[in-house]
Amino acid sequence: MRPRVVVIGAGFGGIGAATRLADLPVDTTIVDQRNHHVFQPLLYQVATAGLAPSDIALPVRGIFQDDENVDFRWATVERVDLGQRLVHVDSGPPLPYDYLIVAAGSQTRWFGIPGVEEHALAMKTLEDATSLRGHILAQFERATAEPTEIDEGALTFVIVGGGPTGVELAGALVELFEVLDRDFHHLDVTRARVVLIEATEHLLNGFTEKSQRSAIDTLEARGVEVRLGQAVDRAGPGRVHFKGGEVLATNTLIWAAGIQPAPLAEEIGIERGQGGRIVVRRDLRPPAYDNVFVVGDLAGAVDHKGKPYLQMASVALQQGHFAGRQIGRLVRGRRPWKFRYIDYGEMATIGRNAAVAELAFGIKLRGVLGWWAWLLVHLVRLAGFRNRLSVLFNWAWSYIRYDRQARIIVHPEDRGSHRAPASDIGTRHQP
Amino acid sequence: MRPRVVVIGAGFGGIGAATRLADLPVDTTIVDQRNHHVFQPLLYQVATAGLAPSDIALPVRGIFQDDENVDFRWATVERVDLGQRLVHVDSGPPLPYDYLIVAAGSQTRWFGIPGVEEHALAMKTLEDATSLRGHILAQFERATAEPTEIDEGALTFVIVGGGPTGVELAGALVELFEVLDRDFHHLDVTRARVVLIEATEHLLNGFTEKSQRSAIDTLEARGVEVRLGQAVDRAGPGRVHFKGGEVLATNTLIWAAGIQPAPLAEEIGIERGQGGRIVVRRDLRPPAYDNVFVVGDLAGAVDHKGKPYLQMASVALQQGHFAGRQIGRLVRGRRPWKFRYIDYGEMATIGRNAAVAELAFGIKLRGVLGWWAWLLVHLVRLAGFRNRLSVLFNWAWSYIRYDRQARIIVHPEDRGSHRAPASDIGTRHQP
Repeated sequence: MRPRVVVIGAGFGGIGAATRLADLPVDTTIVDQRNHHVFQPLLYQVATAGLAPSDIALPVRGIFQDDENVDFRWATVERVDLGQRLVHVDSGPPLPYDYLIVAAGSQTRWFGIPGVEEHALAMKTLEDATSLRGHILAQFERATAEPTEIDEGALTFVIVGGGPTGVELAGALVELFEVLDRDFHHLDVTRARVVLIEATEHLLNGFTEKSQRSAIDTLEARGVEVRLGQAVDRAGPGRVHFKGGEVLATNTLIWAAGIQPAPLAEEIGIERGQGGRIVVRRDLRPPAYDNVFVVGDLAGAVDHKGKPYLQMASVALQQGHFAGRQIGRLVRGRRPWKFRYIDYGEMATIGRNAAVAELAFGIKLRGVLGWWAWLLVHLVRLAGFRNRLSVLFNWAWSYIRYDRQARIIVHPEDRGSHRAPASDIGTRHQP
Repeated sequence: MRPRVVVIGAGFGGIGAATRLADLPVDTTIVDQRNHHVFQPLLYQVATAGLAPSDIALPVRGIFQDDENVDFRWATVERVDLGQRLVHVDSGPPLPYDYLIVAAGSQTRWFGIPGVEEHALAMKTLEDATSLRGHILAQFERATAEPTEIDEGALTFVIVGGGPTGVELAGALVELFEVLDRDFHHLDVTRARVVLIEATEHLLNGFTEKSQRSAIDTLEARGVEVRLGQAVDRAGPGRVHFKGGEVLATNTLIWAAGIQPAPLAEEIGIERGQGGRIVVRRDLRPPAYDNVFVVGDLAGAVDHKGKPYLQMASVALQQGHFAGRQIGRLVRGRRPWKFRYIDYGEMATIGRNAAVAELAFGIKLRGVLGWWAWLLVHLVRLAGFRNRLSVLFNWAWSYIRYDRQARIIVHPEDRGSHRAPASDIGTRHQP
């Protein structure tokens, strides 16, 4: 019988691994609680009505349609029995494995700040992004029906977290306002505010100071209020309280401040290190388990400078590819290599014609050039030929027409509520 | 002050009326509980993963972006005060009017058959279609995880109602199976069944006998089990009972059997006639109200043969246009004309390369020709240039690649449940 591989998670790490495993003499099963892979770097485009959810989601089975040896199980992992080599799931029989790849990723981290999990909107899943889109549009509808609510924060959008997600969302949001200004004939859309909060003194931590400065300048020129060194103390209905005492009236508190490992990291019972990530050797295997690889956000591997790898798509993808290939080596009785990340750089878009990109070989692009580089890289990376065309089409439309076509509110129950009730749609629901 | 017009409903009737009103010296407000117009004839494409929801939904404000005198209110109508000429809504102040157009449309009719409203899935709203898509895909995931469930009806899809909705859905569903057959490597997709139930002895009532026969032949050749003269007695979890005693095990009972007027028809307090539709004169005004027009599914107007008009998009659209124009006449102090429906014909697609079309001037098309005619007409009618391109793109892709790109399950809670819990997402929800 051929070796059986189970891959937990269909994010960049899991899909990366499975694409390599597809070419090996092994039978692979991917498990995920969603039936699709999400291109997370473009979630903010869905949240701001630039792209439709299906533009950035690919059915897992579709990706491996031609790979007879790759199967999929739509299920939530309940427990991993490392001794018996079994993955117990909530749908169908348990999955036996000879090799296991843990790529369960991460989830929103609320930091235990009072009221935040209850009152803030997350930006981590496709459901989060769709809910956020509905919520944002609903605020404008509310403001035009009851203009007095603007003073109570109906049009104040607070984004917490100055990383790429927060920056890209802030930039896209002010652009959405321009479209909505044409949509709403009797609303003073100039009253809409985007406030970007960052606890440290830097936006886009990890970028050079020049890029960081460029991001702040561009955001502020476009009307975003950037507040550095400010932290949230607590949140209540329609209010956010900052450390230092300031209170801001807002209906929309968007939480892009941090992530934490998926619950499986703890449940699996393997030693964890910094940030709750699973401790792995340089070959991405936990010390005591030679048939287990951990990749992506969950992996606590350190780079050659001794720091844990950044939790980003490109690291997860490369680690996934790596783990898949190493299983090929193990199957042939060879020893795995050590993982080495090839850094092609980082980029963040700040909106139309503006982005910062810090690429390999010291190439740094800002403004229009950075934006085109961003566009190109994301189009190339976006898995799936058809999605790529559809996204290109949507982007071209938005660019030429200054329009956002996907501004529909899908769940009517969003209407009038302080926040989208769909906030926990992303979590598991046992019927 | 310019005359104020309130249009209740953003379906074909309401949008049709507002496009005419936009050119008149009046101020118009459209009220709808959704912020978008839905191109309902293509709902079945969303339900079968051929098109994305935003492909067939246009934001109402986007349609009237350049018409400063047309505004929108995202709200549910609670009550119409015909005496005070006020439309009371649940969001924002009441809307005063000089002229009122009632275009509230219809909703799924359950006929009071026991268990049906509880266990069947409707096909009337965008949320219905999205839920149905998730539910269908979830059944295949379930069947591959637990093959024994196939005997219990996991892959038996029962569609009740042999009108265009039921016929088009049945045809599209068996085509989706072909895509899923490539997706599911370890599932015998040939076990999936589509059973189309019709209580009368005819599919596509209103078409000629030859077209009806052609539809049945095509459906059966593609594997749909067509059952005429069969009616549902009651439905239970995983079961549908027919009159006559037969019981069918199914996880999926799709209800396309009929519609009934929206609740507003009763609440508004104007005399109603056949099928609960509001009685109107030949000019579409109720006898006692000279400043009110009723259009579309709600209007009980009779055609020149003395029968009520069919409840279909083209009637609603023409009546909307008509009512809008008549308000222009009233404003100028003239008397309204009588409404006359121009019958351009009817068409229904049965899937790839097959449709029946019965057009004006006695033109009847079947098979491939009918299909191309259907495609062309629907592309032309689909409001909004960008949607049209996007739909064309998706169709071309599906046609060339035999693929359905949008097969993503958006709400994980669909998983494993007998039916999508989102079935009442379409109804109003007061936070």
